[in-house]
Amino acid sequence: MSEHVVVIGAVALGPKAACRFKRIRQDAKVTLIDRDEIFSYGGCGIPYFVSGDVSDANQLRTTAFHMVRDEPFFHDIKGVDVLSGTEATKIDRAKKQVHIKNLKSGAESVLDYDQLVIATGATPRKLNLPGEELENVFYVGNMHDAEKIKQGITKGKYAKAVVVGAGFIGLEMAEAFADMWGIETTVVEIFDQILPRMCSPVLAKMGQNHMEEQGVAFKLGQTVASIEGNGKVEKVVTSDGEVEADIVIVSAGVIPNDKLARECGLDCSERGGILVDESMRTSDSAIFSGGDCVIIKNAVDGSPMFLPMGSMANRQGRVIGSNLAGHSETFPPAAGSWVVKIFERAMSGTGMSLGAARQAGFDAISVLLIMADRAHFYPEKDMMTLEMVVDKATRRVLGLQGYSAGGDAMVGRINAVAALMKFQPKIEDISNLEVPYSPPFASAMDVLNAIANMADNAISGMNHGHGPDTFAEYWANRESGKFCFLDVRESADAEPFLKKYPEYWHNIPQGEIPKRYEELPKDKKLVLVCNTGGRSYEAQVMLDALGFEEVHNTQGGMAVIKAYGVDI
Amino acid sequence: MSEHVVVIGAVALGPKAACRFKRIRQDAKVTLIDRDEIFSYGGCGIPYFVSGDVSDANQLRTTAFHMVRDEPFFHDIKGVDVLSGTEATKIDRAKKQVHIKNLKSGAESVLDYDQLVIATGATPRKLNLPGEELENVFYVGNMHDAEKIKQGITKGKYAKAVVVGAGFIGLEMAEAFADMWGIETTVVEIFDQILPRMCSPVLAKMGQNHMEEQGVAFKLGQTVASIEGNGKVEKVVTSDGEVEADIVIVSAGVIPNDKLARECGLDCSERGGILVDESMRTSDSAIFSGGDCVIIKNAVDGSPMFLPMGSMANRQGRVIGSNLAGHSETFPPAAGSWVVKIFERAMSGTGMSLGAARQAGFDAISVLLIMADRAHFYPEKDMMTLEMVVDKATRRVLGLQGYSAGGDAMVGRINAVAALMKFQPKIEDISNLEVPYSPPFASAMDVLNAIANMADNAISGMNHGHGPDTFAEYWANRESGKFCFLDVRESADAEPFLKKYPEYWHNIPQGEIPKRYEELPKDKKLVLVCNTGGRSYEAQVMLDALGFEEVHNTQGGMAVIKAYGVDI
Repeated sequence: MSEHVVVIGAVALGPKAACRFKRIRQDAKVTLIDRDEIFSYGGCGIPYFVSGDVSDANQLRTTAFHMVRDEPFFHDIKGVDVLSGTEATKIDRAKKQVHIKNLKSGAESVLDYDQLVIATGATPRKLNLPGEELENVFYVGNMHDAEKIKQGITKGKYAKAVVVGAGFIGLEMAEAFADMWGIETTVVEIFDQILPRMCSPVLAKMGQNHMEEQGVAFKLGQTVASIEGNGKVEKVVTSDGEVEADIVIVSAGVIPNDKLARECGLDCSERGGILVDESMRTSDSAIFSGGDCVIIKNAVDGSPMFLPMGSMANRQGRVIGSNLAGHSETFPPAAGSWVVKIFERAMSGTGMSLGAARQAGFDAISVLLIMADRAHFYPEKDMMTLEMVVDKATRRVLGLQGYSAGGDAMVGRINAVAALMKFQPKIEDISNLEVPYSPPFASAMDVLNAIANMADNAISGMNHGHGPDTFAEYWANRESGKFCFLDVRESADAEPFLKKYPEYWHNIPQGEIPKRYEELPKDKKLVLVCNTGGRSYEAQVMLDALGFEEVHNTQGGMAVIKAYGVDI
Repeated sequence: MSEHVVVIGAVALGPKAACRFKRIRQDAKVTLIDRDEIFSYGGCGIPYFVSGDVSDANQLRTTAFHMVRDEPFFHDIKGVDVLSGTEATKIDRAKKQVHIKNLKSGAESVLDYDQLVIATGATPRKLNLPGEELENVFYVGNMHDAEKIKQGITKGKYAKAVVVGAGFIGLEMAEAFADMWGIETTVVEIFDQILPRMCSPVLAKMGQNHMEEQGVAFKLGQTVASIEGNGKVEKVVTSDGEVEADIVIVSAGVIPNDKLARECGLDCSERGGILVDESMRTSDSAIFSGGDCVIIKNAVDGSPMFLPMGSMANRQGRVIGSNLAGHSETFPPAAGSWVVKIFERAMSGTGMSLGAARQAGFDAISVLLIMADRAHFYPEKDMMTLEMVVDKATRRVLGLQGYSAGGDAMVGRINAVAALMKFQPKIEDISNLEVPYSPPFASAMDVLNAIANMADNAISGMNHGHGPDTFAEYWANRESGKFCFLDVRESADAEPFLKKYPEYWHNIPQGEIPKRYEELPKDKKLVLVCNTGGRSYEAQVMLDALGFEEVHNTQGGMAVIKAYGVDI
């Protein structure tokens, strides 16, 4: 009899592993099991289906050549048998059997396997709160949720939405509601920033401001106390008030589905998730696992990491498929790359944010740069804000995050650093990174090189400054008399501020500093500002050399101060 | 007396090195010399100035904050003294002196230096042909050339242009002429493809076809015999005919300006170019050099490389500036990254093309993939064609090149591989490379992962196929009776071809192969075709397993066959 591989779970990793294995081993038998009747779909596309960008739910289940990935597709095209609507209830490792149950008929049976893949994915985290069971409270867990949400929207059932959780899916769903359907949308988040842990509060605020401009409201640093309504949801009560809602989306993260694995004695993490080695093998050598139900290793510090992303699942699926066929492929530690589109902007990152790095024990700093994403003289361009996180002692680059209107261009820079993450790159690896150059696509000294140069200067102490958050603090305390706000741009640029704040705002164009520095107080913190932070850095270097002791340039300058939302 | 650093050449590397050094060492004196009155400009922007995208030549000389980088700018803002219109005639290394001459007054003098930087750049290669001195024959060497070309164009002086050389500048100038000014433009190139050495003939042909669609004519594989005219240029005579022209642009590469260095005894390459170590130091430890006048090391095979690019110059300039100040920074071997915009498409690459790799002695193969540059269900997307070059024995990735309408997205993928080049990446490093994923920006199994997976399958022998060039050959010989062209798409897609070529075109949808394979001849080469190469690969795997011995899938499928221009 030919070898039999059984794969439990048929959304992303399962089908990939099954098909890859079958392509290598045409003689083997592969059975793919899923509880659902709808499987092998792009779950990350759900917000775009809800928004209407993707018009038909089936598009998330079709191949690039427009075939729906259903049972006949897998049978005829891939040579893989699918048992849909079928639950795996138990794994008997000693007998190498999976107990299954047909969810329609209730019939139970047993499948023998030679090798097994557990691709059970994850389940949306419930809030376990009163009212969570009300009508029109949804999770974004599968295609059925998606269809129900979309049906209600297209029927005009919802005027007010609350999204719980400001992670990727929460923000994408908020955009879908507000942008395409004009639904009054509020996002509630327990942390005091959007995309917590993913990026710094500064970048998060820039993203939040953009979403607010597009009509999305935020309630940050608030927990949900209860969801209320009479049969249907009517409002969400938070720790700080209440918000009317006729639809609620709970997107508070996901929990790995490790029950089957745990019950059959496979090694699992105490905090949830199946443990696998670098070949994606569980503690039973005949059983592989990957995707949203496993714990992998973080490339930055080697710590355990839960990274439920469709892309991880697909790539791991191929490795498992190969290894089922006797190859010895390995899956590398995870960089933790991400990107999210928010209206006309994108946010993206790889590695650790400053907060995450410090929490992991690094003595880390970050620098913030805003710069054109191609030659500044090229007519079509966007300003890209990047934040680089570096370890002071070792000069290692621990992460890079960004915010820009030019999403592809920004992701392109993040790609380069993502590629390096497992090699534990140093600052100089990015300073001299050879991105392709031509004015329509990059700068001669590209934004990616420039942020690394800035990190280099910050670590050496040559560049000492602060972001817009600290500027905002100083500015709020401008009446304390402790600060001298020095605008080093040409006078025409500084003039509006000189007029508005004659007592606080000062202007010496950078080139006049050598002649005019004696005008400046020596007993105050000099807070330097220019358009984007370049000239204020050069002015700071000059003033340092002239013996001023408290010189601080504002990274990102007025451009970032504005995007961050300082009231000035 | 404070230390004196002299920098010869003030276009890209020179100013960068000078300003970086001065920022670190505010107490030092820095003198920047240039023969020209116009310096510190973005030479790579010249085609965009000629096209009109950049309206004013001064824009190529301004900072991002709109200050012209002239003598007062360098003095006041950067603390650097500029001697423009001044030629360095001799370097006396023993006395540490540079002999200079004011080109206007003819006055000669001598500058003492403590450390010296040679940033003399490169000069456009002349053809040394009869007629090259005629009026309206131009090189794209500096701003004066650019201004002259633009002046003539805006006055409507030129109706027909010939560009000699189909490298980056040649193609960019051809686009500028044809696109914005409606000038009838012909590109003459000695090699039989555009972008010789940069990419494969297949990608080159795709780019050429696009440019031809936009009205640019090409004469490839032709040398220029003479340029003719009566005072002004009237025609270009090639090895294969003649082309009328009232303007000729010679863009046949550049030659490193190493004369000064050579004459003072610094080590230079026999083939031209100053030799530097990894800290950008010449054979005299007090003299640095970089940019278009030096030879660096190729990251792929360690061979000497001449890579005259503004981006290299800028990055090297910073390293030199730091090292002048006593740091010990190094500049890594070069990946050879590039990108060029051609009308509505871009071409980009890093590392070696297949031809270059084989010439360098690698037993290399390449694979070709066309795929959407983001989730295929996302509405806005472009098809990206990538070609990956790999070494068979070691599985090293030697290069990646591409062609796409989505330039930023493609450059973003090239960035990732460029970043890895110096780490000598293996195929699996790209298969599992963690590009940020979200449907608006990438696929779950991204095009970059997919091309590496394809290379893996090609090396293992699982994927055996050919590109559109070989398909074209087979198709041209379709009457030989040696081939069976098998379209494995659904019948509706195959029908037009079945009707047009009933004798040669066959169709079995991939999913029907297990039932219908006996219809296929066993004594012919089976040439499999689908839309993009995915299904033909899967069909090939099936047919291999069914015992067919001559099965070849067409990489890139009909999409690439069409872009390559096969007459079908």
